[in-house]
Amino acid sequence: MAGSCTLPLSYKIQNSFVPSLCISKASPAFPMRTSTQFPSRFLTHACFKSKSTTLSVSAAGTSFTWDDVLRISQPESLPDDPSDISGFFQKVKICNRGSEKQSEFLPFVIEDEIVGYLHNGFAQHLKRFKDVFFFPRDDSYGGRIGAHVTLHPMLGKPEDRTGAVGDVVKCLGEELIPGIRNELYPVKSSFGSRVFFSLERAAAPYFGIKAYGVQMNGYIERNGQKLLWIGKRSQGKATYPGMLDQLVAGGLPHGIACGENLVKECEEEAGIPRSIANEAIPVGAVSYMDIDGYRYKRDVLFCYDLKLPESFRPENQDGEVDSFKLIPARHVANVIRRTQFFKPNCSLVIIDFLFRHGYMKPEHFGYLDLLQSLRSGDCS
Amino acid sequence: MAGSCTLPLSYKIQNSFVPSLCISKASPAFPMRTSTQFPSRFLTHACFKSKSTTLSVSAAGTSFTWDDVLRISQPESLPDDPSDISGFFQKVKICNRGSEKQSEFLPFVIEDEIVGYLHNGFAQHLKRFKDVFFFPRDDSYGGRIGAHVTLHPMLGKPEDRTGAVGDVVKCLGEELIPGIRNELYPVKSSFGSRVFFSLERAAAPYFGIKAYGVQMNGYIERNGQKLLWIGKRSQGKATYPGMLDQLVAGGLPHGIACGENLVKECEEEAGIPRSIANEAIPVGAVSYMDIDGYRYKRDVLFCYDLKLPESFRPENQDGEVDSFKLIPARHVANVIRRTQFFKPNCSLVIIDFLFRHGYMKPEHFGYLDLLQSLRSGDCS
Repeated sequence: MAGSCTLPLSYKIQNSFVPSLCISKASPAFPMRTSTQFPSRFLTHACFKSKSTTLSVSAAGTSFTWDDVLRISQPESLPDDPSDISGFFQKVKICNRGSEKQSEFLPFVIEDEIVGYLHNGFAQHLKRFKDVFFFPRDDSYGGRIGAHVTLHPMLGKPEDRTGAVGDVVKCLGEELIPGIRNELYPVKSSFGSRVFFSLERAAAPYFGIKAYGVQMNGYIERNGQKLLWIGKRSQGKATYPGMLDQLVAGGLPHGIACGENLVKECEEEAGIPRSIANEAIPVGAVSYMDIDGYRYKRDVLFCYDLKLPESFRPENQDGEVDSFKLIPARHVANVIRRTQFFKPNCSLVIIDFLFRHGYMKPEHFGYLDLLQSLRSGDCS
Repeated sequence: MAGSCTLPLSYKIQNSFVPSLCISKASPAFPMRTSTQFPSRFLTHACFKSKSTTLSVSAAGTSFTWDDVLRISQPESLPDDPSDISGFFQKVKICNRGSEKQSEFLPFVIEDEIVGYLHNGFAQHLKRFKDVFFFPRDDSYGGRIGAHVTLHPMLGKPEDRTGAVGDVVKCLGEELIPGIRNELYPVKSSFGSRVFFSLERAAAPYFGIKAYGVQMNGYIERNGQKLLWIGKRSQGKATYPGMLDQLVAGGLPHGIACGENLVKECEEEAGIPRSIANEAIPVGAVSYMDIDGYRYKRDVLFCYDLKLPESFRPENQDGEVDSFKLIPARHVANVIRRTQFFKPNCSLVIIDFLFRHGYMKPEHFGYLDLLQSLRSGDCS
């Protein structure tokens, strides 16, 4: 995994705002600029270092203020072209790393269905648990799936599988699977299909199972202009501390419907009462697939919009959000294009909002490619 | 090509409104019911006959009234389950026929780029035009593309290609390529790429070139409820006479930007003045690929929403629309689910509207599959 950003001093230009695009290799599908210049104090904190064409997100030590956000959000703060959508492409790319490494993963199969993918290296760690994991020969299923990993045939019931795999995850320890949350995700081949067992949330990307979440853009309309409520994550968060976030977002645990989960998250994250949260409307989904070392994320985020009363002020209840600001959607677009201040997958959900609310135009070069890229992962 | 619908008499049940799903073979990706029962007078006119799993659209003689539309749009007119989205799936499938026949087509290549696909049978008709079309051996381009069709190397300039291919289209005659419109479509490999030449619109599916259009849902908001303006096509239209349509829709000819084309179509189709049409917002795109005999449609429709003043009344200017009605979006959804009254590709644009405006729920079985299916074609 690439480390945090430590760019050479020559890049550190005081008080100069130019696009914060850190990728040096542009692919034809993702037209990008090569310039990499942040205001100096952002350079070592908020920036992401590129290693060849893949990017790694460094969450540690992110440190920028709302003043920084508001300044760079202003159209006039940079002489860039607002019809240039390459900055959006880059944010999509950050969520979709390592597709060239898919061959390093083995399908994780249960009852003939592929439910996940395990890195060859990670699979080695599982081989010693012979009463839990099973490594059939390449020609099983008539060669249709090839080499793969499955569970021991004795583990026929969901609760037995949940217990056995849960014990393995504990046994492997924080060193291999850090950040145990004691929250269970369902293991299934697609959203509507049956649940084979449940798995610790932190382990989901190591088993390459599909993970689902709900993310909501909260906005108000004032004088025909839309303004988005943006959150700044608490510095104490284990992941992406201090970074910008949707008003409300959360993973979808086992056994709760999307709409109900959203209402719960609305209350916890922004103090939105049920009476208002019920007005949130589902508007589609984004997806991505991200390979990083042993981790293979295959995420689908159900997107929601909530038009809030002008008078409403969000208040975080669970300590996970530091503060909120109301920012014109056009300015939020600039923050996404120009910086990496947002937690990466939030960018996708906001870009989707920008598409649906008319902030993107077919006349912008790359419009259809960008639209398609919002569902780069298996959206099922 | 399958003919118009001539269902057996046993299906003709007087005054019985049950879902109008004509497909008898359901695939796992498209869960469908097998029942096919229209009010009798719709059966032989508005219905589409299925031949194995492919469908053919019969436009001739479509005859239903606004009363029929309004009646079947009412929630209580049928005891069906509104969370059952199989009726929407079927409409997507009607726009995406014949994918199993892709192998019958040869790539149409210009300057190393695939710009279209020609049916083997249609290609035979082109072989006699030896100074226009060229059939290289399979191993050209190092075998990368294989057998394909291209233009004669002497035709190096766009205007020469346009002229030469245009002459061939005229020469082939109405029998092979019916409905000449004297309107040119650009030939290119994707939306933003360069134009190699221009081709008569009616010939586009025979050359399998990508075609683009703009389609707009016009709606008003009343008491927090959205109502869509729906058009009924003139009985004199060559294609899909008498069927339901978006408020505004049109193909994208060569040399005009999407937004400008939309404003033009707004004026022609619904008498919407530029001052209002300029308020339309681009909201994404849908795509489909449809193989029917020699025709390979690869269409991308840019979708727009326009929130209209409550007082506005559309008025058709070009004689292509018979009349308009304002119908609650929820009721329009019922018309799409339950009938085939809409011109097929309009259904996709309205289903997209239903997704973006919260009329579809992640809790509905098949939500993600349906969302994905709206861009079944190459959306580039």
